[in-house]
Amino acid sequence: MYGVILAGGSGTRFWPKSREQSPKQLQKIVGDGTMLQNTVQRLLPLISIENIYLATNHQQAVETLRQLDSYGFISDHLIAEPCSKNTALAIGLMAKVIIRKYPDAVMGIFPADHVVANSENLIKTLQKAETLAQKGYLVTLGIPPTRPETGFGYLQQGAEIENEAYQVERFVEKPDRPEAEQYLEDGNYFWNCGVFVWKAATILEELQQHAGNIYSQLETIAGCIQKAKGKSAYLELNETGRDLFSSLPSLSIDYAVMENSSKVALIPANIGWNDVGAWNALDEVSEKDSAGNIISGNVLAQDCYNSIIQSESRLIAVLGLNDTIVVDSPDALLVCAKERSQDVKKLVESLNENGHPEGKQPATVNKPWGSYTILDSGPSYVLKRIEVLPGEALSLQSHQHRSEHWTVVSGSAEVVRDEETFQLESNDSITIPKNAKHRLENLGSDLLIIVEIQIGHLLDESDISRYEDRYGRC
Amino acid sequence: MYGVILAGGSGTRFWPKSREQSPKQLQKIVGDGTMLQNTVQRLLPLISIENIYLATNHQQAVETLRQLDSYGFISDHLIAEPCSKNTALAIGLMAKVIIRKYPDAVMGIFPADHVVANSENLIKTLQKAETLAQKGYLVTLGIPPTRPETGFGYLQQGAEIENEAYQVERFVEKPDRPEAEQYLEDGNYFWNCGVFVWKAATILEELQQHAGNIYSQLETIAGCIQKAKGKSAYLELNETGRDLFSSLPSLSIDYAVMENSSKVALIPANIGWNDVGAWNALDEVSEKDSAGNIISGNVLAQDCYNSIIQSESRLIAVLGLNDTIVVDSPDALLVCAKERSQDVKKLVESLNENGHPEGKQPATVNKPWGSYTILDSGPSYVLKRIEVLPGEALSLQSHQHRSEHWTVVSGSAEVVRDEETFQLESNDSITIPKNAKHRLENLGSDLLIIVEIQIGHLLDESDISRYEDRYGRC
Repeated sequence: MYGVILAGGSGTRFWPKSREQSPKQLQKIVGDGTMLQNTVQRLLPLISIENIYLATNHQQAVETLRQLDSYGFISDHLIAEPCSKNTALAIGLMAKVIIRKYPDAVMGIFPADHVVANSENLIKTLQKAETLAQKGYLVTLGIPPTRPETGFGYLQQGAEIENEAYQVERFVEKPDRPEAEQYLEDGNYFWNCGVFVWKAATILEELQQHAGNIYSQLETIAGCIQKAKGKSAYLELNETGRDLFSSLPSLSIDYAVMENSSKVALIPANIGWNDVGAWNALDEVSEKDSAGNIISGNVLAQDCYNSIIQSESRLIAVLGLNDTIVVDSPDALLVCAKERSQDVKKLVESLNENGHPEGKQPATVNKPWGSYTILDSGPSYVLKRIEVLPGEALSLQSHQHRSEHWTVVSGSAEVVRDEETFQLESNDSITIPKNAKHRLENLGSDLLIIVEIQIGHLLDESDISRYEDRYGRC
Repeated sequence: MYGVILAGGSGTRFWPKSREQSPKQLQKIVGDGTMLQNTVQRLLPLISIENIYLATNHQQAVETLRQLDSYGFISDHLIAEPCSKNTALAIGLMAKVIIRKYPDAVMGIFPADHVVANSENLIKTLQKAETLAQKGYLVTLGIPPTRPETGFGYLQQGAEIENEAYQVERFVEKPDRPEAEQYLEDGNYFWNCGVFVWKAATILEELQQHAGNIYSQLETIAGCIQKAKGKSAYLELNETGRDLFSSLPSLSIDYAVMENSSKVALIPANIGWNDVGAWNALDEVSEKDSAGNIISGNVLAQDCYNSIIQSESRLIAVLGLNDTIVVDSPDALLVCAKERSQDVKKLVESLNENGHPEGKQPATVNKPWGSYTILDSGPSYVLKRIEVLPGEALSLQSHQHRSEHWTVVSGSAEVVRDEETFQLESNDSITIPKNAKHRLENLGSDLLIIVEIQIGHLLDESDISRYEDRYGRC
């Protein structure tokens, strides 16, 4: 089987831990790894890493590869989408890419930001699904509901096909509360969890039949795929492909295909699934202390009950809280009544409307070469910690309005400054005057950490002239 | 009248805004200035700044002077106590100091960390008190109680002396709830707010009579007063004086004198007094928005009621909170049910017991020459912002285990490094290698701001050898 991970989510509901520019699947929310890493990890018993593909948006491509590096994920199995167009187009394009190499391939589709507590049952269920998929079914995993949830779509179970696999009587959009209660009581409704298994050939045929406007462009878009520049050679679309991709409708695979196809099969799946849709979902998937609290990091809690307290580094002292969520981050803090978790999404919208950059951008900004974090600033200076990954380099650049002072605190750096080249080790420093062409590169095998002090009267990320860039950003 | 401000409090109840090393009176809690500044400000219509004296502890002396600089406070009117010995000793020593210069002086005693909303009435009441004090009374201001408070001592009103000034029938220690309710109902009990007016000669006579063990040493201790080193020439005790001071009992003036003296007079004082004893006291002294919230700084609040939200710089987003206190600081965060405000003191004790430095030490550490703030650190580096006040200098020092990289981001610096001297302006930087003797001085008239990067494998404040120090710290 080939695994296709859909990792395009934005996840504002986990703000301030997740941001538009550092979405939920790239965060550690439950367990040891990030949501994405956990998703890959649980598939490995069935699908080897070289058979795993991934679609994400352009902004997240490098960080996504970085998180999967230690698994041996193949970087040109990642397709970076130019914009988000929901699942139908992403799945169609992936089917095209895979079928070109493997005409008989069976694909499993997996969201990157859900929890599956029972991996063993997942694997067993997927094996069963593969058998059905080989016979031409579009197999969907159905989660037995545990509460009258109004936030999910439901699948109504139909006649048995074979061996506890069923036809789907109908797809139900998010129900209202009385309907959801009825479904729970009836026992033959299942949550649609977004995990599907089918032959690449089957889903393409069904897309052709039910979503011809998308299907008809897939061949052309697939022909526009190229390798991205830089060391992280993921796949992206050329300009023609980007334009075409962007012009297509944004449809879910459920709406475009599943609700209309006669080939859908349902396998009930007891896999401990949770979509972890908001902070209060941690109550269902995380271990609690004896007072019902879920606490992580540098926290002192006194007389607190049923609360979620997450410190990233700073000390949090909490006293007498009940059913409260406290999530700290270097640049923003959330304190929220637990029952209002679902409204964090709206809160972030308000932040964005009110011009708070913290709504979208995290304190540590990922770049193709590594990351930077603003540590302090004043009227005439900005102080940053810059981390450059082994083998990576910032562009050859200059600034009109600021000089920069670099001190290497860890690792080793090669610095180009106009006509000169310097090898710097920890404890070395260098000044880059205004207008000097300069480049910072990590030729070593360890992470390079630099403290940068920018000094000037106009300190702006946009004051940058790029002359050469290995990531195509000139 | 001469004003004596007692500014020795520690104020852990306003953690994390106040810390042991940056107590409540030095913080902005209500209004424009710090509690101390507001205290001085409200006395000025009656007592000119050159007649104001102040007792504080040694650690706070420089910051205290700094806060009063713009008022023209005379620096050798500040006595820095070597340790905290409650009010009897502090008042006795101040009386000795003042009576030497002004044998007939009337002294007003004022805590530095209370709110007085009605300054006009305070001044009128003090004028009345002065008249009585001239006649040999120990005048105490009594606050008409507004609730059955069990946290204060009470004064029971006795017979009228003259013009709505009364004898005190008795001093009552903190009562239990039923007693406090009875006092409130009776109407002839008043809160003891710690504001007293008397002749220096009278209080010394009464100390002699009722607290001879303290009185008998005052003359000797006063003879041990000397000017502190450095530009901030406040008064301190020499070693003999410190030893003697430290050996004396820690008694309140109430316990040592007032409860035993026959000269006590009470003036009821409608002055809008509040001791601001914990975060929830802000409800009584601060303006609220239409939802009953008291919000300051970078805060987005949605559906929050009757809460206190204080951001120092980072964004705080709050959703659906009721009666909750959120106070942020650069290195520590408090989230607390409002009704538990009084227990913040215990929370800080727990922090101290558990070895959290944030319990005592603030993120910005005041020094005689200015302050430093740790901005970032890693295994091999510490990053600090150093602020040096005009005319001040760090000691001539060296470090065995670290080198330091300094970049001037604002102001100008003179740097001594072994045999060389450098004049640095904004945008200049210099490296101080291990073991180099160095000194940093601000010869300019503006604040000097330096970014310091310490690099080494043992990064500890204790790795410092001092050769010369104008503040006597060698």
